Amino acid sequence: MSGKKMVYYFGGGKAEGRADMKLLLGGKGANLAEMTNLGLPVPPGITITTEVCREYYALGKQFPEGMWEQVLEGLKKIEDEMGKKFGDKENPLLVSVRSGAPVSMPGMMDTILNLGLNDETVEGLAKSTGNERFAWDSYRRFIQMFGNVVMGIPHDKFEHILEEKKREVGAKQDVDLTAEDLKDIVEKYKELVKKETGKDFPQDPYEQLRMAIRAVFDSWNNPRAIKYREIHNIPEDYGTAVNIVAMVFGNMGDTSGTGVAFTRNPSTGENEFYGEYLKNAQGEDVVAGIRTPQPLTKSQKTSEGQTSLEEEFPEVYKQLLEVREILEKHYRDMQDIEFTIENGRLWMLQTRAGKRTARAAVKIAVDMVKEGLITKEEAIMRVDPLLINQLLHPMIDEEDRKRAIAEGRLIAKGLPAAPGAVSGKVVFNADDAVELAEKGEKVILVRHETSPEDIHGMHAAEGILTARGGMTSHAAVVARGMGKTCIAGAESIQIDYDKKEFRVGDVVVKEGEVITIDGSTGEIFHGEVKTIPAHISGEFEELMKWADEIRDMQVRVNADTPEDARQGREFGAEGIGLCRTEHMFFKEERIPVVREMILAKTPEERKRALEKLLPMQRADFIAIFEAMNGLPVNIRLLDPPLHEFLPRTEEEFERTAKEMGLPVEEVKKRAEELQEVNPMLGLRGSRLGIVYPEIYEMQVRAILEAACHCKKNGIEVFPEIMLPLIADDKELAELKKLIDKVAAEVFLETGVEVPYQVGTMVEIPRAALIADKLARYAEYFSFGTNDLTQMAFGLSRDDAGKFIGEYIERGILEGDPFVHIDESGVGELIRIAIEKGNKVREGIKTGICGEHGGDPRSIDFFQKVGVKYISPSPFRVPIARLAAAQAKIKQKRGEL
Amino acid sequence: MSGKKMVYYFGGGKAEGRADMKLLLGGKGANLAEMTNLGLPVPPGITITTEVCREYYALGKQFPEGMWEQVLEGLKKIEDEMGKKFGDKENPLLVSVRSGAPVSMPGMMDTILNLGLNDETVEGLAKSTGNERFAWDSYRRFIQMFGNVVMGIPHDKFEHILEEKKREVGAKQDVDLTAEDLKDIVEKYKELVKKETGKDFPQDPYEQLRMAIRAVFDSWNNPRAIKYREIHNIPEDYGTAVNIVAMVFGNMGDTSGTGVAFTRNPSTGENEFYGEYLKNAQGEDVVAGIRTPQPLTKSQKTSEGQTSLEEEFPEVYKQLLEVREILEKHYRDMQDIEFTIENGRLWMLQTRAGKRTARAAVKIAVDMVKEGLITKEEAIMRVDPLLINQLLHPMIDEEDRKRAIAEGRLIAKGLPAAPGAVSGKVVFNADDAVELAEKGEKVILVRHETSPEDIHGMHAAEGILTARGGMTSHAAVVARGMGKTCIAGAESIQIDYDKKEFRVGDVVVKEGEVITIDGSTGEIFHGEVKTIPAHISGEFEELMKWADEIRDMQVRVNADTPEDARQGREFGAEGIGLCRTEHMFFKEERIPVVREMILAKTPEERKRALEKLLPMQRADFIAIFEAMNGLPVNIRLLDPPLHEFLPRTEEEFERTAKEMGLPVEEVKKRAEELQEVNPMLGLRGSRLGIVYPEIYEMQVRAILEAACHCKKNGIEVFPEIMLPLIADDKELAELKKLIDKVAAEVFLETGVEVPYQVGTMVEIPRAALIADKLARYAEYFSFGTNDLTQMAFGLSRDDAGKFIGEYIERGILEGDPFVHIDESGVGELIRIAIEKGNKVREGIKTGICGEHGGDPRSIDFFQKVGVKYISPSPFRVPIARLAAAQAKIKQKRGEL
Repeated sequence: MSGKKMVYYFGGGKAEGRADMKLLLGGKGANLAEMTNLGLPVPPGITITTEVCREYYALGKQFPEGMWEQVLEGLKKIEDEMGKKFGDKENPLLVSVRSGAPVSMPGMMDTILNLGLNDETVEGLAKSTGNERFAWDSYRRFIQMFGNVVMGIPHDKFEHILEEKKREVGAKQDVDLTAEDLKDIVEKYKELVKKETGKDFPQDPYEQLRMAIRAVFDSWNNPRAIKYREIHNIPEDYGTAVNIVAMVFGNMGDTSGTGVAFTRNPSTGENEFYGEYLKNAQGEDVVAGIRTPQPLTKSQKTSEGQTSLEEEFPEVYKQLLEVREILEKHYRDMQDIEFTIENGRLWMLQTRAGKRTARAAVKIAVDMVKEGLITKEEAIMRVDPLLINQLLHPMIDEEDRKRAIAEGRLIAKGLPAAPGAVSGKVVFNADDAVELAEKGEKVILVRHETSPEDIHGMHAAEGILTARGGMTSHAAVVARGMGKTCIAGAESIQIDYDKKEFRVGDVVVKEGEVITIDGSTGEIFHGEVKTIPAHISGEFEELMKWADEIRDMQVRVNADTPEDARQGREFGAEGIGLCRTEHMFFKEERIPVVREMILAKTPEERKRALEKLLPMQRADFIAIFEAMNGLPVNIRLLDPPLHEFLPRTEEEFERTAKEMGLPVEEVKKRAEELQEVNPMLGLRGSRLGIVYPEIYEMQVRAILEAACHCKKNGIEVFPEIMLPLIADDKELAELKKLIDKVAAEVFLETGVEVPYQVGTMVEIPRAALIADKLARYAEYFSFGTNDLTQMAFGLSRDDAGKFIGEYIERGILEGDPFVHIDESGVGELIRIAIEKGNKVREGIKTGICGEHGGDPRSIDFFQKVGVKYISPSPFRVPIARLAAAQAKIKQKRGEL
Repeated sequence: MSGKKMVYYFGGGKAEGRADMKLLLGGKGANLAEMTNLGLPVPPGITITTEVCREYYALGKQFPEGMWEQVLEGLKKIEDEMGKKFGDKENPLLVSVRSGAPVSMPGMMDTILNLGLNDETVEGLAKSTGNERFAWDSYRRFIQMFGNVVMGIPHDKFEHILEEKKREVGAKQDVDLTAEDLKDIVEKYKELVKKETGKDFPQDPYEQLRMAIRAVFDSWNNPRAIKYREIHNIPEDYGTAVNIVAMVFGNMGDTSGTGVAFTRNPSTGENEFYGEYLKNAQGEDVVAGIRTPQPLTKSQKTSEGQTSLEEEFPEVYKQLLEVREILEKHYRDMQDIEFTIENGRLWMLQTRAGKRTARAAVKIAVDMVKEGLITKEEAIMRVDPLLINQLLHPMIDEEDRKRAIAEGRLIAKGLPAAPGAVSGKVVFNADDAVELAEKGEKVILVRHETSPEDIHGMHAAEGILTARGGMTSHAAVVARGMGKTCIAGAESIQIDYDKKEFRVGDVVVKEGEVITIDGSTGEIFHGEVKTIPAHISGEFEELMKWADEIRDMQVRVNADTPEDARQGREFGAEGIGLCRTEHMFFKEERIPVVREMILAKTPEERKRALEKLLPMQRADFIAIFEAMNGLPVNIRLLDPPLHEFLPRTEEEFERTAKEMGLPVEEVKKRAEELQEVNPMLGLRGSRLGIVYPEIYEMQVRAILEAACHCKKNGIEVFPEIMLPLIADDKELAELKKLIDKVAAEVFLETGVEVPYQVGTMVEIPRAALIADKLARYAEYFSFGTNDLTQMAFGLSRDDAGKFIGEYIERGILEGDPFVHIDESGVGELIRIAIEKGNKVREGIKTGICGEHGGDPRSIDFFQKVGVKYISPSPFRVPIARLAAAQAKIKQKRGEL
């Protein structure tokens, strides 16, 4: 390797690297080089490549031959540029040493400042700056940083010495310490180093540098970094670069300072310069928050007491405005920059794409298109679809959140199951939720887990909190469908239904007490925390329109009610991808009839009950068809196991028995007979349609009578009738025959014909494997990725919560397969099914109606395998639209 | 079609057909032709081909053009051969008309005898035979048969007239009726026909013949025939042939007779002629059982009162012996023949391969090899592996069974879940079973369904009867494993645990009453029914040896105990394919320790409990290794959900809590926490190993310490350690690391090293789809086809019983996928896994440890896809050995 270029120099207006060399130079190094080439004032420095890091490990943690020589060569150039010498007793060059991987990665070594100081050069620094206290404070800081980060001595041991000294001399703050005090501290620090490591603090600046480089390389493989890479799928062999840059000092007095700025407002996205700075300070002081930073611009000022950089350093500010313009034009994105002013001279220390809120991301992207900086496609790629969620739900006020945390009111965390933030009074059952809500109270329903019996309570509540279940538990799925906030699987809370209270550690929260839950973070607060309402700006609409122009996957919505249908349509859904008929069965006035149906002894008795349900279901469908006028509506026939509809408590059994004129024992017996060991794999879905054909007959009749009724009234209807849980083609053939028979009857009776399609869910692994046979009868496939994941993975979504967290944490699973589609297993089944389906029915319509239809990572995969539409819950529709456009762009670019 | 040959003639020593033309002529017609060509005395006749039947349906139930002409042509030849004329008033030719499909198929029209009789020909028959009564009796029979079978008049209406007449004239039996009586009956029969159909009984013999042919064709599509074809997978377009054969009469007096014979004893397989006959009778009389048939041979005689055909018709007997020899040599199989003697002349009416018992099948096959008639491969193909079951278990005595049925003691039927027949006293829980068994009583455990808690009771019982569950329910699987008789899913019995009784309709069976269950048929008898012990003849062993020489799939055994291991080895198992460690945990003295382990709060507490279990498990493994000295033992680490081990009843909770020194509430809480909604898809298998690594560490240690101990004592051990329910390669990698770590420790501690392998179950669909990744870590795959079926099919084996029967009955499923492997779904996953596994690890060892490993149809499939070994329960080992040999032969022949 010795002949290879291992070190890249930048300085004096020219750099050997470029911004597109991130893989080799890391993000930081590449951008420093780029800025240098742009003619911006960057202190000279060198970057040791990531290749060296890989070689270092390959050699068993040895510097590769020739590296040190190249470092020294680079150092020489820095010395020449700065007119100072490293280790010089008179006018010493100091450097910072920082890691910098190709992707931003917390967990690694960050920064060592002031490297090059020792017992002699500290005197030189004092002399050359004429500021002894500054020199000794820098030395003190250097030993502390180096001792901790490079030599591994605990931080608090240094702090302890510092605090002791302050108490001894009666200093309130660090700045109250004199040069003498600091000298004393430096002595004590050196003693500490000797005691802890058995060695003297290294006095040779070159030795310091070698140790720092080694520490950066080693930090690539510390446990936090490894874990972070595992979680974020960052290749282990990326390695980190090392940046060694000449120190410039913002703490040289009132003509100096340091600051950070965003080229646009990162919170609102407004096209305005935005930032803060500290006079007479080094970068770390801004972070440490010892003094309050001042605003960058006049317009940013919120009180008279503030002095903006614009006013204080007008010349530097003018220079910064130019830098801002150059960087935005060059990078074509909003930048987050760090700068230092040393004796009135501006130095740029870093630039990178700035983090921003969802609102800002959207506005900046759209504005930049209008400014001609980027294309529409680029604008679309700039916005993280998941961030959009923020725009659709209220958020917790950040300031109040900090306050609540400080007050110890953050009592637990659960899974962020459905976004939004709400406060409300705690209730422990659905009936109480309804009762309190009817009195105009905001309530939060707290349950071990929810069941279909709780639907009315979930409707009445502002939010739902469960102690069990995962991201796709009943509570989570239903809440997302309803657009309610939900935290699921908050395992640390212990609920006592009898006492109507829950406990977390020592905290007891009783019924009626207020809690605040943040369904975007999973945080649970005792008492109220302020929330701020959602903003949907005009730019957002514009961006969505562009997305719609680009994407080729259709986006529908999962909606069981006219309200959901309207909500989805408002969010841009192009039809209903999944209308679950079972939720309609749970309405309070229907449950007795549904129970009558289930407890029927003969098909005739069952038909009588179904006849009562028919007009109700028909009315449901009419309302939904009206809401979706002109768009397709995909209706799934009854799916869940019948026992879900049965009473559970003693009281419910008695009421039901009375209502039905049956002995309680009879009702219980029948309910017990319907109980199953593994209901997910039991008598449900189309199996119900086979065993009790009269149920599906009624449903098909209700759908088609509603459709004919609507058509008569001038409403355009495109009903699609979908069979759930199909495992075999014969099953499908038999039920398709049933549907076609009922359709013929209804069309004859009503004298109206409507176009309808019959499709099948593909949610059992076997269905995917025999998709060619299914395609002979099914006009479309809808992948129920929740069930498909459960069965392909052998993972019950109701039970996985107990261990899946541990799996993800230990890196055994890359993510929750109920959130991101498992490409190699579940995805493979989808791929097989689409391939086989197309062999028999070319271009067969295929859709996703599982929760994955609202997950961007999964949407990329669906685009890749050629899925025709996705259908998430209403509040995920905008996310899906954007993600589908991004997937299409990635596909065009060959990035999928 | 008119130019085509539609009718095949046989007679006068020459036939147009051959035995190998079964598809065209049906089995009956082809064999009649073959016998004719062999020079055997077959009455002349014709066969209308199955092609005509297909054409008949294609034409909308019309005879194809030209058929009738060919029939008349054939009839002419029969007339010439017989010297009689069809419809002749003096000496009429009569014929029989019979259906005959390519495969034997009950449900279709059987036989019409004496066709050609009418008011005139009956007189001719009387004259030409000199027996008026015979003629009128034949006419009476003909009208009755034809009226019922062809014209659809209920049988009992004819019987009613016959009975009336008998009462009127005081006749006890049919034979007591005079010619005059019979004439009167014929009149009344004709009136009945007129009344029922509005038409006269057809007098034209040609019309009779046309109607009979039509009736045969139509019977191909009657509901019973359709159902039978569906169940047995017989192609609908086979169609049936029609055989029209000259009547010969065994009822022409004492020089005549009719009989059936087997060329070897169909019960024992002895090489002896065996059969029975009736003097002066027609074929139907033998079947009707009005008179008791006499034995064929002298040696067959069981009392002095009997007269054998050998004595009565010595000439005919000699001729029959020749026929026997010719047919066996020709067909190279034991034949079932029908013959008639008309005035001392022998006529052969049918030959076909004879049905036989398992014992006979084995003996005949082996004998025929020794006689040089067939090859060893043919012998192997001759024995139905499923029949072998009979040889390994006691059977119900057929005579006593008939008696019990006559007495109304057959009270219910369930699924034949585990073979054998046993009588015993009914008990309703495991403890009672143990208690009564300890007193020396034979007991049958009757439960809704069994659970692991019932194991001790199942061990104590002779047999198990459950009201729920299917062929692979807990009861069924465990019973088969134990070699216990079991009937599962006897849905008609209603159990009352409190009253300790069960009901079937009006019958109440209380605790302590005796029942008899036949696990091979599913029959449940009240009271005792005699059983006969199993016979394993020397020929059986011989046949098995041949099978072993031919097959290339290894046959192992599923065994959890040294007893099972020994039993399996005795039956020829070449290793243990699945040793489930969880059953070892259920032993009564261990359960408290297991509970301690489960209820542990910390890994340390858990380890303490595990340390107590370690020596117990080690002792188990030592005993198993000893039993399997020299053979591989594949041990699966703990698989079931932990809550299975927890107490259930209030009493058990209290006992457990006391034992453990914990409050009852604590125990209940923990048990509740472990409860799962879908335990099959929950925290089990290797997930336990990930979450509680200390459990698997203990098990691996126990296995390898046992192995090292055995090796020290000169026992050859080949432990294979298998991880259950693997869904991901990272999971597998982590647990393999754990196993290798413990192995290294044990080898270091003991100073002994044993070869061991680490493998994985492939029982989750995803595992099959990522088998290439799994093969990087797994040295072998074992397909858990039960779980794989559950998940691939979305079908819980515990719950499927409620609807799978209906699915099979309605032909939606071809068979129970838990019995026969589902080739297109589950099988496809196996195929994919083997293919992918071999890509990474060429020739990877693959085995089946699900119940399908003992199912011949499934074994064919496993051979086809290249599975290396199968592993059924001990009593299925011989079945698997034979089936594996057959599969290999079929593969060689290109029949798979």
